[in-house]
Amino acid sequence: MHWTVYLSGEIHTNWRDEIAAACEGLPVSFTAPVTDHAASDDCGVAILGEEPNKFWHDHKGAKLNAIRTRNAIEAADLVVVRFGEKYRQWNAAFDAGYAHALGKPLIVMHNAEHAHALKEVDAAANATCETPRQAAQMLQYLMTGALPES
Amino acid sequence: MHWTVYLSGEIHTNWRDEIAAACEGLPVSFTAPVTDHAASDDCGVAILGEEPNKFWHDHKGAKLNAIRTRNAIEAADLVVVRFGEKYRQWNAAFDAGYAHALGKPLIVMHNAEHAHALKEVDAAANATCETPRQAAQMLQYLMTGALPES
Amino acid sequence: MHWTVYLSGEIHTNWRDEIAAACEGLPVSFTAPVTDHAASDDCGVAILGEEPNKFWHDHKGAKLNAIRTRNAIEAADLVVVRFGEKYRQWNAAFDAGYAHALGKPLIVMHNAEHAHALKEVDAAANATCETPRQAAQMLQYLMTGALPES
Amino acid sequence: MHWTVYLSGEIHTNWRDEIAAACEGLPVSFTAPVTDHAASDDCGVAILGEEPNKFWHDHKGAKLNAIRTRNAIEAADLVVVRFGEKYRQWNAAFDAGYAHALGKPLIVMHNAEHAHALKEVDAAANATCETPRQAAQMLQYLMTGALPES
Amino acid sequence: MHWTVYLSGEIHTNWRDEIAAACEGLPVSFTAPVTDHAASDDCGVAILGEEPNKFWHDHKGAKLNAIRTRNAIEAADLVVVRFGEKYRQWNAAFDAGYAHALGKPLIVMHNAEHAHALKEVDAAANATCETPRQAAQMLQYLMTGALPES
Amino acid sequence: MHWTVYLSGEIHTNWRDEIAAACEGLPVSFTAPVTDHAASDDCGVAILGEEPNKFWHDHKGAKLNAIRTRNAIEAADLVVVRFGEKYRQWNAAFDAGYAHALGKPLIVMHNAEHAHALKEVDAAANATCETPRQAAQMLQYLMTGALPES
Amino acid sequence: MHWTVYLSGEIHTNWRDEIAAACEGLPVSFTAPVTDHAASDDCGVAILGEEPNKFWHDHKGAKLNAIRTRNAIEAADLVVVRFGEKYRQWNAAFDAGYAHALGKPLIVMHNAEHAHALKEVDAAANATCETPRQAAQMLQYLMTGALPES
Amino acid sequence: MHWTVYLSGEIHTNWRDEIAAACEGLPVSFTAPVTDHAASDDCGVAILGEEPNKFWHDHKGAKLNAIRTRNAIEAADLVVVRFGEKYRQWNAAFDAGYAHALGKPLIVMHNAEHAHALKEVDAAANATCETPRQAAQMLQYLMTGALPES
Repeated sequence: MHWTVYLSGEIHTNWRDEIAAACEGLPVSFTAPVTDHAASDDCGVAILGEEPNKFWHDHKGAKLNAIRTRNAIEAADLVVVRFGEKYRQWNAAFDAGYAHALGKPLIVMHNAEHAHALKEVDAAANATCETPRQAAQMLQYLMTGALPES
Repeated sequence: MHWTVYLSGEIHTNWRDEIAAACEGLPVSFTAPVTDHAASDDCGVAILGEEPNKFWHDHKGAKLNAIRTRNAIEAADLVVVRFGEKYRQWNAAFDAGYAHALGKPLIVMHNAEHAHALKEVDAAANATCETPRQAAQMLQYLMTGALPES
Repeated sequence: MHWTVYLSGEIHTNWRDEIAAACEGLPVSFTAPVTDHAASDDCGVAILGEEPNKFWHDHKGAKLNAIRTRNAIEAADLVVVRFGEKYRQWNAAFDAGYAHALGKPLIVMHNAEHAHALKEVDAAANATCETPRQAAQMLQYLMTGALPES
Repeated sequence: MHWTVYLSGEIHTNWRDEIAAACEGLPVSFTAPVTDHAASDDCGVAILGEEPNKFWHDHKGAKLNAIRTRNAIEAADLVVVRFGEKYRQWNAAFDAGYAHALGKPLIVMHNAEHAHALKEVDAAANATCETPRQAAQMLQYLMTGALPES
Repeated sequence: MHWTVYLSGEIHTNWRDEIAAACEGLPVSFTAPVTDHAASDDCGVAILGEEPNKFWHDHKGAKLNAIRTRNAIEAADLVVVRFGEKYRQWNAAFDAGYAHALGKPLIVMHNAEHAHALKEVDAAANATCETPRQAAQMLQYLMTGALPES
Repeated sequence: MHWTVYLSGEIHTNWRDEIAAACEGLPVSFTAPVTDHAASDDCGVAILGEEPNKFWHDHKGAKLNAIRTRNAIEAADLVVVRFGEKYRQWNAAFDAGYAHALGKPLIVMHNAEHAHALKEVDAAANATCETPRQAAQMLQYLMTGALPES
Repeated sequence: MHWTVYLSGEIHTNWRDEIAAACEGLPVSFTAPVTDHAASDDCGVAILGEEPNKFWHDHKGAKLNAIRTRNAIEAADLVVVRFGEKYRQWNAAFDAGYAHALGKPLIVMHNAEHAHALKEVDAAANATCETPRQAAQMLQYLMTGALPES
Repeated sequence: MHWTVYLSGEIHTNWRDEIAAACEGLPVSFTAPVTDHAASDDCGVAILGEEPNKFWHDHKGAKLNAIRTRNAIEAADLVVVRFGEKYRQWNAAFDAGYAHALGKPLIVMHNAEHAHALKEVDAAANATCETPRQAAQMLQYLMTGALPES
């Protein structure tokens, strides 16, 4: 049993590294979107040519990034989506909906204050947690059957 | 040719009625989530019993509502998602992702100010517009081949 | 919006009639397995010839009934599975698993005493209830958006 | 030709080990649910926080375990489901229905006394057997074409 | 509940009419291949131009007929395949395999003498019968729940 | 048996009308793209706003038209694609590939001179013909079993 | 590029070995049904217990063998089906239909005398050939792009 | 993360080599159709026997090549389609439609002069570019997150 886990959503803290470090030794590979915010925003025009209109600037980048994010979700055995404190993060909710429609199991991570606003997303999830540590503990349990020591 | 069009997202203005009125006579049926905010929030506990914990109160409602929203998206020939001015509206983005993964054509409606934050959602759409009138004009064109008179 | 709802499981009380009566006037059609226990048990040999071995007697009947039950689940917009007080009812749990794998929304009905034994089935459901009245109220809400009067 | 075989159902005897031992050397990998009953029951609250209500205690655990069981069924080339002597084992029947809807070949194992109650599950199976030894012999035949020596 | 039933296979007796007559009044529609043997053999060249090579003569016809037969199988709720006394009837077995892969329930009809040669086809079927009367009785039972009077 | 037939490709002759006229009385409905060339080219900017860059002008229109063409292909029981004498007609070949991947039966219509260049498209087709009259004759045969009178 | 090729059908000559020998060095793996005729016929009762009725004797074996054949077809990149000189070989035609419905490319091998009777099977194939040598040459061409030396 | 990228379309320049060279070191494998034009045209008759009629000559070859091209598209994580300066290239557009219907991300490459004629194909693409260098830069970005140095 080896799983590929896609870590979607918030890109301004090191939560992906925390999970990966805590899961070292488990038969799990992690994938992610491009987490360099500037590169992610500008990739379309940097490669395919400038656009005077910001909408098309964004469009070229978002469609290019979608190749990576959609492929990664489709290849994933599990999708973890983290909603952070900043920004609208509609792409995180979009990823959650996309993954759910493909039948991928979903773990959603967010602070308690967002629980009401995220109730539809949480309702599609197999688990809702608040911290990377909990996500890692779930992965440890799922892969080994062992609960975290209390 | 008859289409069922699911109108997802914002529930605090009468944009659904505007589109329906402008499309009268077209072979189009419209579906929608429950748009009574209070009923939508409380449906789970009202029917299945109170929950002291707000998370499970929300959870019961959201999972019940999901029966209607997922069925409607799956039955739709086209999904229109409107992002309004208020709230986080993560459920709208979730619906967009869900619909896109099912291969449903998508029209996204929002003000220009949200364009950057919604670039991933727009990138999955067949069209991005700002007003219900534009959405209705697209439906008129798609069903009849006639462009709006200028 | 018109739904076909498959009522699976227990066949020794009139719960299907209760739901249908309470939903009169809603755009909902109900389907069900053959609920005549004796006919259901003997249909295979009655039409296709006697079997001295009880296993093949049962097998012929169960495979014939499966044509109706699988077709009905596949055609359903919603599956309601009721676990009653008697018998092992493994076929009800099988139907629930079958429906869930097809992505059908699921309502599970059972007494509180079975909650622990049915936790995996409930975990796949959009709602867990105890009475036909609750199932009917959910259908009313889902089709009309109106909550039951308290 | 290498197969992954999911061994579902009863967790109180060592039938999984018996099959694995008898199949040593065959190009077959075995997967299973978490078979530590206590860990499986409590995993949700142990990681995600206590629930005063037993229903949600169970629910959190069952949904977490579902990540493992559904992924394993989806990745399996063959699903073997054993119904033991104790408990209701609705989850085993649920797994059988789930696997069958995904088109997975199914081997069902149970004592003769359960044959009538399990007739719908047996009707979906490619083979019904009583012992782990028979399941192992089928795997040996399927992988090598050689029948067991009599 | 209304079913479309595809009647595949043997085209030299009136078995389709027998079933249809016996099922009058049931909510069942029947579809079939073109049963005019000569027209079915020559349709390709009659419309698309002569072929000196018999292989391409047959090929053009078979590919044209496949539009009807594949569409009909895909639209069917149930497929009945009859193997008659004459010819190789590989197309009947092909249809059975095609239908089974699509998850269509299958009823196979043939004389006892063909049972061994058809064991793989029968193994994929929900029922094996010998006469059109039995097929009609199964349909009557499946639609109404009533067994034939003895 | 009622079929919906999508008529894709060339929009500068009245071949669609010829087929429809010849098929009057058959249980067949025809669908098509928007065949008003100017409206089809400009629909995006006419409704959603001007674009100074011709690429985005075309893009907006093509994505809007794709809602109609993809929905129509997905809803079709049969797709007829005609390649005419003028233009590159890459959209016709794209439609053929799209339809084929969805498993739709395909009839391709073109003059003999294009046979070599269209060999990959013809290889995916159930029939290759040259005239609307032949397409209509095939439909007549497929729906009624009767060959055209010679 | 590595392909798995399923070699279905006739089991009384060494055609599978001929193809495998001719393809040595190519990135191709071959799979096959159990080709020991006696073991294949008796596997069900040898493992699962005797049946006095020949129909169930055959049935148990055919359903057990189906685990291997269906899994192998589903895992194949290409299916080659050979119709030999003897027996009805309905299982070969069934496999062809099954493979075709799953979208697997198909090569059919048979003598010219069977061409008319196999026209529906040939019509679903990517290629029809007469000898194992031709099948091997096609594989060589498909994997390397090199035509056989004349 | 390892991707297989199918390079479809134009076969008269070395654009595939350019991309592969520029992507050396990335976890990407490339697949392609047979690019030897003469072998590709004649493969059918060279292996399966001469055809006096050019249509069937082409047909046999195109159907044989389709085994490789369809398998490669289905196995691809990304499809790049290049439209060159010569020929009709309907097979390239067919491949693009086929890939898009399977949900494969698509990069389309062509000179600006073809933009209007290819607008429907471009509308289905995640990116439109003009040069192999741009395609390689996109792959580099998608696999590593690093933009090309300016």
